[in-house]
Amino acid sequence: MRPFEGVRVLDFTQVVSGPYCTQFLGLLGAEVIKVESRDGDNVRWGAGDPELSKDGLGATYVMFNMGKKSITLDLKDPEAKHIVMQLARTVDVVVENFRAGVMQRLGFDHKTLRAENPRLIYCSISGFGQSGPDSKAPAFDGNIQAMSGMMAVTGEVDGPPMRAGYSVGDTSTGLNAALAISAALYQRVQTGTGQFIDVAMLDSAISLLSQTAGGWLNGRNVQKRRANLSINFEPTADAFDTAEGGLLLAIMRDEHVRLLMTALGLDELNDDPRLATRKDRVANAAFIRGKVQAELMKAGGAEWKRRLDKAGVPCAQILDLPEALSQPQVQHRGLVLEMKDEKTGHAMHSLNAAFQYEHGGPAPSFPPQRLGAQNDEILKSLGYGDAQIADLKKREVI
Amino acid sequence: MRPFEGVRVLDFTQVVSGPYCTQFLGLLGAEVIKVESRDGDNVRWGAGDPELSKDGLGATYVMFNMGKKSITLDLKDPEAKHIVMQLARTVDVVVENFRAGVMQRLGFDHKTLRAENPRLIYCSISGFGQSGPDSKAPAFDGNIQAMSGMMAVTGEVDGPPMRAGYSVGDTSTGLNAALAISAALYQRVQTGTGQFIDVAMLDSAISLLSQTAGGWLNGRNVQKRRANLSINFEPTADAFDTAEGGLLLAIMRDEHVRLLMTALGLDELNDDPRLATRKDRVANAAFIRGKVQAELMKAGGAEWKRRLDKAGVPCAQILDLPEALSQPQVQHRGLVLEMKDEKTGHAMHSLNAAFQYEHGGPAPSFPPQRLGAQNDEILKSLGYGDAQIADLKKREVI
Repeated sequence: MRPFEGVRVLDFTQVVSGPYCTQFLGLLGAEVIKVESRDGDNVRWGAGDPELSKDGLGATYVMFNMGKKSITLDLKDPEAKHIVMQLARTVDVVVENFRAGVMQRLGFDHKTLRAENPRLIYCSISGFGQSGPDSKAPAFDGNIQAMSGMMAVTGEVDGPPMRAGYSVGDTSTGLNAALAISAALYQRVQTGTGQFIDVAMLDSAISLLSQTAGGWLNGRNVQKRRANLSINFEPTADAFDTAEGGLLLAIMRDEHVRLLMTALGLDELNDDPRLATRKDRVANAAFIRGKVQAELMKAGGAEWKRRLDKAGVPCAQILDLPEALSQPQVQHRGLVLEMKDEKTGHAMHSLNAAFQYEHGGPAPSFPPQRLGAQNDEILKSLGYGDAQIADLKKREVI
Repeated sequence: MRPFEGVRVLDFTQVVSGPYCTQFLGLLGAEVIKVESRDGDNVRWGAGDPELSKDGLGATYVMFNMGKKSITLDLKDPEAKHIVMQLARTVDVVVENFRAGVMQRLGFDHKTLRAENPRLIYCSISGFGQSGPDSKAPAFDGNIQAMSGMMAVTGEVDGPPMRAGYSVGDTSTGLNAALAISAALYQRVQTGTGQFIDVAMLDSAISLLSQTAGGWLNGRNVQKRRANLSINFEPTADAFDTAEGGLLLAIMRDEHVRLLMTALGLDELNDDPRLATRKDRVANAAFIRGKVQAELMKAGGAEWKRRLDKAGVPCAQILDLPEALSQPQVQHRGLVLEMKDEKTGHAMHSLNAAFQYEHGGPAPSFPPQRLGAQNDEILKSLGYGDAQIADLKKREVI
């Protein structure tokens, strides 16, 4: 039995941060009812498998919306509001990632819904939090990377600040929200009362930089950009080119440096005082890097990985994502999930959680759904009859 | 009442990923007992406040170890093993981030401890997971960034792959572990039985790239490095220089582009067919970027932020971490925590969780502790007397 079997989630999220959060809840067993506008979550209509994309199952939607039922509602319509209120009485958790203030304008703020359902756990995800001078500002992954200090520490030493090329602000926020909701569910077992949770993307991003923040707050150290050089400035803890592909060396100990030089055929450097201690190596970094780089050009990354593994020194090939996913270890973990679309038979893919349980662990309940696929099912569960549902469709409420 | 009041955690973690996880559990109310070697967690002895660092309260240790009691144990000593087994019977959660196999060699693997305590939730954090071809390989944040595809999508278009300058592989893993443990605690309420959790850094890192993975797995799109350009390739969703500091524009809609051009004094471009649609703008990206960049050099980043906020178009200054932490919004959120060291009176700082609760939310129980500060307290709770404790110290067991 998965942890959240029996937990019901009413999900007003879209794009990435919120859907990543509610997908975790679904993987952990919750019943997730995703409320979408009649146009659907924007990312439904992005690129992907051509036949699925035209049905609103674009690549990003598929990635972040496993195991969620879909109901369409025009949230400005009074009858849609009535439907939301009925659903809110039956669920354990509400999650939303509108800009701060939107749910209030719609009449679905946490005070209103929790008045109807005192055990409700209501989680708001926003760029900056529900109050404060920037609370109403729009947030995008790029803004968040800029404002958090992430960009300032990433990039070439003499180059400009650089974004991580993945939506780290969004995904880290989704993780924080899932953690906050899970802990609140446990809390509710003890207290019997609901909760309001306020998650901010900017806080999530800064928290990922905790090590950098610790150095500043506790030691007044301002971290500079240092490209791929490790935090300890060892010239052998850095990225290098090879004859084919990049190689990341993570060699930070005297004994590992010696093993590396031997593996590179540079035994003579093991008697060189410039390599004797970390301090010497940092002082002679350009010399050492030049020697190492020249040798590494004599074979490809896979070959060097094999040789250096054998020599017992830590390194990694720099892989692109398709290569990363094809690694035997990643396949062994079953990280990539494949589901089949019932209508077209086409494969849909997502990723499982990064953790495995011995029993009752994360697994998708069913594949991503077309827009409004569960309109009838959900409305019938509230007592609506076929004629009423047909009328709601005709009036464009659903 | 915080969620995990009454939950006890036996914490064998060190450095970043594991301590970040158990710090969340402590912030959420758990009693965390950190078991350290007699030398202590390595990061105790890093730089920081000089007077605190020499006492083993280096900057990184302080950041990741709020609210944890510290007990020293030589885990290879039989009496230390006996102490661990006694503690394991009294706790709800064990967390460890040794390399796969180490806890087994010490006699503290999950099967052994769960045989003593069937309700125990045991979480192992490792680079690659507890089984599989790479399970025994050493993992560092750099290796993980290289092997996950993170570096391949980060950096200049024609430059090398680039690491994020923060330990994103470590911190994202700690978040995943905290989520997995929280959900398992809720699961245990239903099932009454413990759990074994296997968290992998590589999986955590790949999961942060879910959007990139969705594009590949569902659309065969291989994301290339594109520096700071947004995923939609709009030339006005990118980083720019100003007369003082960097500016990230997140302008991705027709109407926002028009507002931007007006704010820049480039009204004439609003009639230019090269800016008419997204397709036109992407085709004329170099022209548009040049025009925008030239105007932005005429004032500083703070001034442009003020003007563009007023114009209603989304942008952000590119801040370094000290600037990021001093933003009024971040201060409003109370993200930075300050605690006072009892012995020296010096301030110690960390960050609160990125989420706030209406009641019973995350808060530190007490400041980071010196190595072995709770040796006596914990041993006495197991029934050890003063003479026995003195003997354990003399024999260097604790």
